[in-house]
Amino acid sequence: MTAPAALRELLLSRITDVPDYPEPGVVFKDITPLLADPEAFGQLTDALAELCVRHRADKIAGLEARGFILAAPAAVRAGVGFVPVRKAGKLPGATLGQTYDLEYGRAEIEIHADALEPGDRVLVIDDVLATGGTADASLQLVRRAGAEVAGLAVLMELGFLAGRKRLESTLKGAPLEALVTV
Amino acid sequence: MTAPAALRELLLSRITDVPDYPEPGVVFKDITPLLADPEAFGQLTDALAELCVRHRADKIAGLEARGFILAAPAAVRAGVGFVPVRKAGKLPGATLGQTYDLEYGRAEIEIHADALEPGDRVLVIDDVLATGGTADASLQLVRRAGAEVAGLAVLMELGFLAGRKRLESTLKGAPLEALVTV
Repeated sequence: MTAPAALRELLLSRITDVPDYPEPGVVFKDITPLLADPEAFGQLTDALAELCVRHRADKIAGLEARGFILAAPAAVRAGVGFVPVRKAGKLPGATLGQTYDLEYGRAEIEIHADALEPGDRVLVIDDVLATGGTADASLQLVRRAGAEVAGLAVLMELGFLAGRKRLESTLKGAPLEALVTV
Repeated sequence: MTAPAALRELLLSRITDVPDYPEPGVVFKDITPLLADPEAFGQLTDALAELCVRHRADKIAGLEARGFILAAPAAVRAGVGFVPVRKAGKLPGATLGQTYDLEYGRAEIEIHADALEPGDRVLVIDDVLATGGTADASLQLVRRAGAEVAGLAVLMELGFLAGRKRLESTLKGAPLEALVTV
């Protein structure tokens, strides 16, 4: 699924390219102009909340840190609970952790061990799907916490990095929704 | 200002104490139960959005990372732009930075140099006011970016750490709003 053409055009017009960030040769997609535009941010929030309803999710998990900015308003709008997935060492309670590979080295994300229950259906939200490492780890965490993956929703999919392909086996048929693909 | 008694009671009932986190002897105030409760998170969002209206703010700045979770829904609800204040090195464009003292060492936060304009009135939102170091730095950044401070709003003020006193000179009469004080 992609968003309707008018929304897609609005969202794309508010995402700007920053060349050579975070390193030479990489073009970074900056969503801060979108967040600064109340009309665009409001429509994005509506679209994510609709996905929550459509896929019968009763919780939304947001990935630190930019994912928080999109996931939290969507949870409030949809009227479902918000669950933060954080970098290791940031959550105060007992946690489940999942490591994943980066280009150089490894990273770990965590979820509170009691954040989800059997029967919960969780929509995971992040801003960008790149190679899919963080998304993959977060989907595994949702399942290990005892809940069901209702889907993964991102504002933007970087198609050339093939994250969608990588996530196939982890999604196990759950939908991957990208509002725009670049 | 504190929130009306019923809201205050609801919010406090969803904030739990985690002893000895992040270090022995410290009691951490965990807001994740509040975020997981759609009714409480929705009412918190309404209250923050109302503060935005009451203080005639036309932008909301959220502080990484937990501040994002409260500030972004408030901005969407109030229909104003959202501006992230991030840890150093995370924003892709040209930035203004402000260092501040921690208990041990120093830290730096940044804002995009073009995120605000003269005439903007900015409400800064974070989850907790502790000693006030980050809040102080963020208010300075708002002014250095050319905008006016409409106020600082936090979910929770840790009164015994005297952050309010420290912020007096930086607020310059702008309101500090804590929905609950512990």
